[in-house]
Amino acid sequence: MAVKAPVEVIPETYSYVFSPYREPIARVGQGQRVVIHCEDAFESRIRSADDLPSRALAGAKFLNPQTGPIYVEGAEPGDVLAVRIEEITPTRDFAVSCLIPFFGGLTSTSITRTLQPSLPEKVWIWRLEQGNLVNDELELALPWQPFMGTLAVAPDLEAITALSPGPFGGNMDVPDVSPGNTIYLPVWNEGALFYTGDTHARQGQGELCGVALEITSKVTVVFTVIKGRSISWPRIESADRLMTVGSARPMEDAARIAYAELVGWLETDFGWQRENAYQLLTQAGGLYVGNMVDTTYSLVASVEKRYLRPGEP
Amino acid sequence: MAVKAPVEVIPETYSYVFSPYREPIARVGQGQRVVIHCEDAFESRIRSADDLPSRALAGAKFLNPQTGPIYVEGAEPGDVLAVRIEEITPTRDFAVSCLIPFFGGLTSTSITRTLQPSLPEKVWIWRLEQGNLVNDELELALPWQPFMGTLAVAPDLEAITALSPGPFGGNMDVPDVSPGNTIYLPVWNEGALFYTGDTHARQGQGELCGVALEITSKVTVVFTVIKGRSISWPRIESADRLMTVGSARPMEDAARIAYAELVGWLETDFGWQRENAYQLLTQAGGLYVGNMVDTTYSLVASVEKRYLRPGEP
Amino acid sequence: MAVKAPVEVIPETYSYVFSPYREPIARVGQGQRVVIHCEDAFESRIRSADDLPSRALAGAKFLNPQTGPIYVEGAEPGDVLAVRIEEITPTRDFAVSCLIPFFGGLTSTSITRTLQPSLPEKVWIWRLEQGNLVNDELELALPWQPFMGTLAVAPDLEAITALSPGPFGGNMDVPDVSPGNTIYLPVWNEGALFYTGDTHARQGQGELCGVALEITSKVTVVFTVIKGRSISWPRIESADRLMTVGSARPMEDAARIAYAELVGWLETDFGWQRENAYQLLTQAGGLYVGNMVDTTYSLVASVEKRYLRPGEP
Amino acid sequence: MAVKAPVEVIPETYSYVFSPYREPIARVGQGQRVVIHCEDAFESRIRSADDLPSRALAGAKFLNPQTGPIYVEGAEPGDVLAVRIEEITPTRDFAVSCLIPFFGGLTSTSITRTLQPSLPEKVWIWRLEQGNLVNDELELALPWQPFMGTLAVAPDLEAITALSPGPFGGNMDVPDVSPGNTIYLPVWNEGALFYTGDTHARQGQGELCGVALEITSKVTVVFTVIKGRSISWPRIESADRLMTVGSARPMEDAARIAYAELVGWLETDFGWQRENAYQLLTQAGGLYVGNMVDTTYSLVASVEKRYLRPGEP
Repeated sequence: MAVKAPVEVIPETYSYVFSPYREPIARVGQGQRVVIHCEDAFESRIRSADDLPSRALAGAKFLNPQTGPIYVEGAEPGDVLAVRIEEITPTRDFAVSCLIPFFGGLTSTSITRTLQPSLPEKVWIWRLEQGNLVNDELELALPWQPFMGTLAVAPDLEAITALSPGPFGGNMDVPDVSPGNTIYLPVWNEGALFYTGDTHARQGQGELCGVALEITSKVTVVFTVIKGRSISWPRIESADRLMTVGSARPMEDAARIAYAELVGWLETDFGWQRENAYQLLTQAGGLYVGNMVDTTYSLVASVEKRYLRPGEP
Repeated sequence: MAVKAPVEVIPETYSYVFSPYREPIARVGQGQRVVIHCEDAFESRIRSADDLPSRALAGAKFLNPQTGPIYVEGAEPGDVLAVRIEEITPTRDFAVSCLIPFFGGLTSTSITRTLQPSLPEKVWIWRLEQGNLVNDELELALPWQPFMGTLAVAPDLEAITALSPGPFGGNMDVPDVSPGNTIYLPVWNEGALFYTGDTHARQGQGELCGVALEITSKVTVVFTVIKGRSISWPRIESADRLMTVGSARPMEDAARIAYAELVGWLETDFGWQRENAYQLLTQAGGLYVGNMVDTTYSLVASVEKRYLRPGEP
Repeated sequence: MAVKAPVEVIPETYSYVFSPYREPIARVGQGQRVVIHCEDAFESRIRSADDLPSRALAGAKFLNPQTGPIYVEGAEPGDVLAVRIEEITPTRDFAVSCLIPFFGGLTSTSITRTLQPSLPEKVWIWRLEQGNLVNDELELALPWQPFMGTLAVAPDLEAITALSPGPFGGNMDVPDVSPGNTIYLPVWNEGALFYTGDTHARQGQGELCGVALEITSKVTVVFTVIKGRSISWPRIESADRLMTVGSARPMEDAARIAYAELVGWLETDFGWQRENAYQLLTQAGGLYVGNMVDTTYSLVASVEKRYLRPGEP
Repeated sequence: MAVKAPVEVIPETYSYVFSPYREPIARVGQGQRVVIHCEDAFESRIRSADDLPSRALAGAKFLNPQTGPIYVEGAEPGDVLAVRIEEITPTRDFAVSCLIPFFGGLTSTSITRTLQPSLPEKVWIWRLEQGNLVNDELELALPWQPFMGTLAVAPDLEAITALSPGPFGGNMDVPDVSPGNTIYLPVWNEGALFYTGDTHARQGQGELCGVALEITSKVTVVFTVIKGRSISWPRIESADRLMTVGSARPMEDAARIAYAELVGWLETDFGWQRENAYQLLTQAGGLYVGNMVDTTYSLVASVEKRYLRPGEP
């Protein structure tokens, strides 16, 4: 398929929900390079260490603005949408992180409730300098390793907050949703209705305090629609690994989903006998925590492609 | 400290429990190389594909035999025991894995009960050949990457089955308990009362089916007792990373323990301010699943040592 | 407020989603008796022991049809909607329950995934006879104790499947959503946008197999809008108890939400000091499981009203 | 079996562990009335509102002292021990409750870790007056409804802290472990090795703050050994209900255990077909939370005996 000239998607307003009920803001073809402009998770309300969330976000009814939905031509319910991320370019020279009251991995939250007071608020500004993110208070430079915190299609019937991960992808906060990798998502609506946003300049596994290095960006993707296939949860393919993402609570259910999907992938596409796939992943599978802070936790199971050759069809 | 001649610990019987109530089978000094002979998790009852667990393990009242307790001279309650693993040598030329009814990550279990029938039993034999583990049915060779599935000190007051991980270490099934790394454990008893066993020729993250590549071995360790320090959960140090292990259910509690312990390590030993440690781990922490199959799940949080220099004392 | 003549709400189509994006099917005033006609959870597709779910539900894209949204005059975002259930009348003479593959409390599910086969399907028909539900196979008569499995307002921004419970109420499957009791729900939309359905002729605590005694019905409710109050999760008031419903996974999070909300209710409305409310509920609180089978689990915390008098304003 | 004269068991020291490694402090026969003297959970260190836990418990290495082990003649591994509780008599005129830092249902804990500060400490003294427990600060009288928070046999192989519930019973904190009821426990050791303690003058469901109304007591029990039966988890029988107790984390696993055990009880003892037992409990089962604060959570599933008659052998 010939690659066409890039299309720019510059939103006028953002969506705070992955919804089949919104009008597409753009229509794009398969194989095109699509350059999508994204706000950061706080819609740029936090820009300095003084912008404490309780004040800076006071006027924000919702968080995590998404660019979308983007209608992908040819996508129909039952297909698989393949999203290859070509490039993520920052559109400002700093990233922000912060502590938000009752949000994060080492605090009680609105779901894991306690009667304790919240942790104090705090903002960190990390400057983007020569391929690193630099924070003066931590006296530290960390490498630029960007990825999309949020990448989704519209669910079937439901409209889900952009703060949630799920079978539709969403706010997975998985560092492997990154340039060079292809993300596969189920399609439930005509045109797939793609959303993305929440660019992270980098993030550790777990997104511990709940806020990665949030940045505005342009992300370049290429869509392909796969007919005659059906998947239940997001999948990621890198140069050398197959990955599946499960999102659920408690966290062990996310782990079970991720690994069960990977067993299924090996069965369906690589001709593995189920018990042998279970054995392979026992001895050679990877399993890391993408996020331990969102409405459901996202875990990533993986296996190296080179181990799959024997049974390959 | 001068390294003395190696001491061999060859058990006459095994322990199925991490217990302060058992007599030491050996006394060793600090700084000595200690070579510990270990049975596999099934006490070598499974040796071929025909040794289905329901038959082969019928006579086994308990599983996961441990070598110990080993009394480490100079260790007193409140100290930290540092265990450097120098080498793991296989003492047979094959490893075994199997499916045991109602045990594993993708089946209901005695804890996560359902009314469904169990998965079918099955045994895989992996031959150890030239640094690889080879299975003919999977037509696959995987690298030899051995570690100790179980490594523990006796708890305080309690005697805990060798199938359990916990603050005392135990059956963590964490691949970083491997040659070249040092494991730190809390000490609750005179002599620390060290146990180890359950050698794994290799294992994926999560130990998905519940049974890694189980092998008999000799493991060489060197003990050091650290006075004036106190830790609550196991820690691991490699050439380039600090790691903490949390074991709990649900899995998110294991994640919280691991990361909270790592925050504390950065505060106490590296002079980090708590919120900044929380921030560092958010952007640069690692978090993988060691086991998703044991009585509690073990998660490993980590950070690269090179990021800790700024605040180092 | 004078009670007006009853209004009948007879839907032409049903909603499978609690959505702010649907047009109201009726507008009703406060204080009116409203008689709402409801389908059963299977839209009456299962009517005999031969109607196995895999066949009978094959044509059903979605389950749990709801009657709504009903626009309640005067309700505005930030208010509380009080729904008094006056009466539930069955509109047929039998109730159904069944085993659905991979759904229920003692089976693996789409969230708690395993590789095991499903339990066998089965349908039970219970005849409604003289105030009892009678099943011949079980040779048993159980009392008619009806309640609404599902009762909700539209969420803010999101459209959520009618299979889910949440802060908006929804598919809580809590037996205290019953005649004589008043349910309080947060209001996020003009007119509140009320939905109900999933009538249960009776149900045990936990709704163990996932399917209660499902029946079609007419339910009579009276709405009142409470201004100047704000709640975060559903509350229930009976003649003698205050109850709060928390829905989350893992189940302990649902328990924490329910009890934390009840502590807050005692503080706000009854002048209790927080620690003393915590103490009272420790010694005299109730906590039962409504459902252990839905997308999140619903737990009900409660306290007897007679214990609240001392601090009452 | 003729009831013999009561035997008094007055311990000289207490056990903080359910252990098969301790010498029996008494030997009793079956059918005898045995009067067991018990300390409270704090070994009477907290006696006034000024005895804040951080000070009063500073000298206590362990909590929850147990009276035992008591050797029951005739009990052998594989049997069932039936413990009928005849009476609980307080041995002082007040009960205590308190808030202990990082312990309880609405705070982060050593298992559910956060970086937040603890809740403030506080002690409540409740006077025992004419069948009520009276607290002046709450201006409240609650009825005396005593039960044993802890009741156990020694486990197999393990020695488990008296703070834990489990298959052996233990620190279940289940209000139905009360006078008039019979508790059934598995037997793993000669003489069963029975322990009890942690008397509660009363407690709500969940034991929300982690500390019930703790009191010293004499409890009168009668032991019976049941041969040729085998159970896996504790069971309780009252005049009108059968109950099973499951203890696990996350809480849904405790629920699954409790209900799966109850299905098994109906199958084995009452001739119920498995699917029909599953159906009965769906429509008529009870499921409440005993504790949501201990090392594992204890849930109680139940069914009314009158519904079991049809299939009774």
